[in-house]
Amino acid sequence: MNKCYIDGSIGQCGHSSRSADKAAASGTVMDLKKDFHMNSGAGDNSYARNSKIQGLIISKSQSERRKAAVAAYLGTGRPATMSVADLGCSSGPTALLAVEDIMVAVERACVELHGQPPEFNLLLNDLYGNDFNALFRSFPEFNSRRQGKGLCFVTGVPGTFYGRLFAAKSLHLVCSSSSLHWLSQMPEELQQKEGSPAACVNKGKVFISAGSPPCVAEAYRKQFHRDFTTFLRCRAEEIVRGGLMVLAFMSRKNREAALMEDRYIWGLLEDALNAMASEERIDSFDAPFYAPSMEELEEEIGGEGSFCIRSSDQFLVRWDDDNQYSGTGGEANVTARPVKHAVRMAKGVRAVAESMLRSHFGEGFGMDDLFCRYGGLLAQYYADSEAAVTNVVISLVRK
Amino acid sequence: MNKCYIDGSIGQCGHSSRSADKAAASGTVMDLKKDFHMNSGAGDNSYARNSKIQGLIISKSQSERRKAAVAAYLGTGRPATMSVADLGCSSGPTALLAVEDIMVAVERACVELHGQPPEFNLLLNDLYGNDFNALFRSFPEFNSRRQGKGLCFVTGVPGTFYGRLFAAKSLHLVCSSSSLHWLSQMPEELQQKEGSPAACVNKGKVFISAGSPPCVAEAYRKQFHRDFTTFLRCRAEEIVRGGLMVLAFMSRKNREAALMEDRYIWGLLEDALNAMASEERIDSFDAPFYAPSMEELEEEIGGEGSFCIRSSDQFLVRWDDDNQYSGTGGEANVTARPVKHAVRMAKGVRAVAESMLRSHFGEGFGMDDLFCRYGGLLAQYYADSEAAVTNVVISLVRK
Repeated sequence: MNKCYIDGSIGQCGHSSRSADKAAASGTVMDLKKDFHMNSGAGDNSYARNSKIQGLIISKSQSERRKAAVAAYLGTGRPATMSVADLGCSSGPTALLAVEDIMVAVERACVELHGQPPEFNLLLNDLYGNDFNALFRSFPEFNSRRQGKGLCFVTGVPGTFYGRLFAAKSLHLVCSSSSLHWLSQMPEELQQKEGSPAACVNKGKVFISAGSPPCVAEAYRKQFHRDFTTFLRCRAEEIVRGGLMVLAFMSRKNREAALMEDRYIWGLLEDALNAMASEERIDSFDAPFYAPSMEELEEEIGGEGSFCIRSSDQFLVRWDDDNQYSGTGGEANVTARPVKHAVRMAKGVRAVAESMLRSHFGEGFGMDDLFCRYGGLLAQYYADSEAAVTNVVISLVRK
Repeated sequence: MNKCYIDGSIGQCGHSSRSADKAAASGTVMDLKKDFHMNSGAGDNSYARNSKIQGLIISKSQSERRKAAVAAYLGTGRPATMSVADLGCSSGPTALLAVEDIMVAVERACVELHGQPPEFNLLLNDLYGNDFNALFRSFPEFNSRRQGKGLCFVTGVPGTFYGRLFAAKSLHLVCSSSSLHWLSQMPEELQQKEGSPAACVNKGKVFISAGSPPCVAEAYRKQFHRDFTTFLRCRAEEIVRGGLMVLAFMSRKNREAALMEDRYIWGLLEDALNAMASEERIDSFDAPFYAPSMEELEEEIGGEGSFCIRSSDQFLVRWDDDNQYSGTGGEANVTARPVKHAVRMAKGVRAVAESMLRSHFGEGFGMDDLFCRYGGLLAQYYADSEAAVTNVVISLVRK
C-alpha cells in the first residue's frame, strides 16, 4: 500500500515525530501535534465552557451530516458494524454531538427501511494534548442516553489527521467540524530552518495581512495544498469504497474574497500581540490557519482524485447574534452588547489558540493581558461592524 | 447476536450505568467502573512510579505472550491488519510493554517465514478514570521507537472488560496483565441492597479472612464465577475464530490453598483500616479481588465453552527480591531491608487501591496515615516472612 508522507518522513503509527524532534532542537518551531490542543478542564477559560460557536456550527451542518450518514450506510452495503470517525472531536459539550446525531440518523433510516440498525464503532480523534480524560469521563452519561438502543463502541484515537490514524479500509464515515481550517504547521516557506532565514518573512504580522508581501499568501496556499492533499490521501486509504466524509470548517466566500477576510480574528490578535511581544517572536509566528474558498476546495479534491463531491454548501455563523446562543439573549442595555459579544469571542478564541500561543511566546507570556487587550479591540470593532464566520460543509464520496 | 448482560442490565456501548446510578443513590456501594483507577500522574504516589512489580509480571509472562502472538497471527490466517487489545493497560512505563513485545514477536516470525508483517491495530483499554492523557502523551516517543517498522494505529478504549468493548469478530489477540484478579464489584451477596441487609456480613474484615463466616468465601467464589463467565462471553463475541487470549493475573497455588493466602496483602490492610475507620464502613467494604486457583480457572473456561486452553503456567513474583528490581539491589544494612521492602510494597498497593478506598471511606480519609500504618505492619511481617505473589499465565484459543 501507499504510505502517507507527512512532514517529509514516512508516517509511523499514523504519524512521525522525527521532524518534531528536529524542530524542538532548533528551538524556534513549535510542534503542533504535541503543542496544540483546546484548553483542558472545565474552568473559566476552558474549551468546554467556551465552545458554543463550534456547537452552532455542528448544528447548522446537521442536515448535511445526517444525509451523509445514511448515504454512507447504504453506499457501503449496510455493514453490520458501522465505523464512524470524528476528526478533531475535542472535549466538552460539543465532543459527542456529531456522532450521536449520526447514529440517530442511521437508526431512523433503518426503521423506515424495516431493517436492523448496525452496531457502531465510534472513533474519536484529536491531537495528543486533547483532554481525553474529560471526554472519557463523559461516556457513562453518554451510554445512559443510549439506553434501549443498539450497541456502540467508543474509542479515543490520539494523533494528527495529517497522517494515517486508522487501518486500511476500516471506515464507513468520517466527520469533522471546526478542525480542517488548522494547518499541520506554520507555512513551511515562512519558517526558519536550521538557522537559515525563512524564504519569506511576514514582518510584524501573524497571518495574511494587508501589509504582508505577496509571498505570504502564496506560502499559505502551498501549505494548505500540501496538508489537504495529505489529508485526502490518508483518508482515501482508510475509507472503504462508497464511504463518505462530511467536513465542516471555516472558508472564504469566494476565491476573490480577500485572504484577510478574517481580519477581525487574526488582525486584532496581531495588534494585541504587537503591543506585548518582541518583534522577533512576532516575525517568526504565523497562525497555522487557512480558510479556503469553495473553488480552491473543488480544485484540491479534483486534483487528488480519490473522492467526488456529493454536495457542498456555505453558511454564516455570527459571534454577535444573541438568538443563536440559548439563554443569552435579551440584553436590555443595547450599548453593552458589543462588550458582551467581544468578551464571548475573546474567550472563544483563547480557548482554542492559547496552547499554541503559549508554545510560541513562552510559558511566562501574559495570556490574561493579551486576551483582555484583544477583547477591548473586539469591542471597538463590534461597535460598528458585524462579525460573521463563513463556514463550508462538504460531503465527499470515496470512489 | 447475544448481548452481554452486565450487572443485570443489557450492555449498552459495552457497559451500562443503570446499576451504577442505583448504587450511587443508595450511598453505600461504589461504582468500580467510574471510581477505580490506578493513581494518575507522575508524582510520588502515582502508579507510574510504583508499578515495578506489574512490570516484572509482564516480563515473566513474556515468553507465553510471544508464543500466543505468533499463534494468533498464524491461526487467524495472517491478517493484513492484526488487531490486538490490552485489557487493563493502565498508564506509566508498563502500559505499552506487552503490545510492543507482541508486535516484535509477530514481526520476527514474519521475517523467519519470509512474509510481509501485518499492520497493527493496538486497542488499549482501561476504566474511565485511567490517566489516558498521560498514556497518549507517551505515544510520540513510542512512535519514534517504531521508526523503520510497519504502520501501527493506537487507540484508547475506556470502559470495563466485564462488558462488551469491541465490535463483534474484530480482534485477533487479547492480552491482559495484573487486571483480571479485580472483580467487577464487591461480591453481591455481601452488599446491602436498597436498605435491606446483606445476605452475608464479613464483620470487621475486608477480604476472606480466618474469622470470616463460610458464606464470605462462597460469595467471593460466586462473584468470580459471574464475572469471569461474563468476561469470557464478551471476548468470545469479539475474538475471531483461531484468535487467542493470553491472560496473566494473581492466582492461588491450588484449590486447597487457603483462600486467605493473600493474608499479608489484605489482612494487614484490614488491621490498618480497623485502627482508623468506623465499624460500619469496614463491615460494608470487601475488596473486589479474587485470586482463583488453576483448577477453578479450568472449570470456568470449560463451563463457558467458547475457548480451549492452549497452555498455562504459574509463577512467583516476590516483593522482597532485590535482584528482580533493577538498580535497587546491594543494600548493605541487612536489618534495613524489611523496611525498604515494606515501603516499596505499601506504595505499590497504595498506587493501585487508593482510588477505591477513597471512594468507600471518603475524600477526607487519611490515606497517608493508612499507608504509613500498613507499611509498618508489612515491615514487621517481612522481618521473618517472605512475600511472594503467585501469578497464573494462561493462553486460550477461540474455538
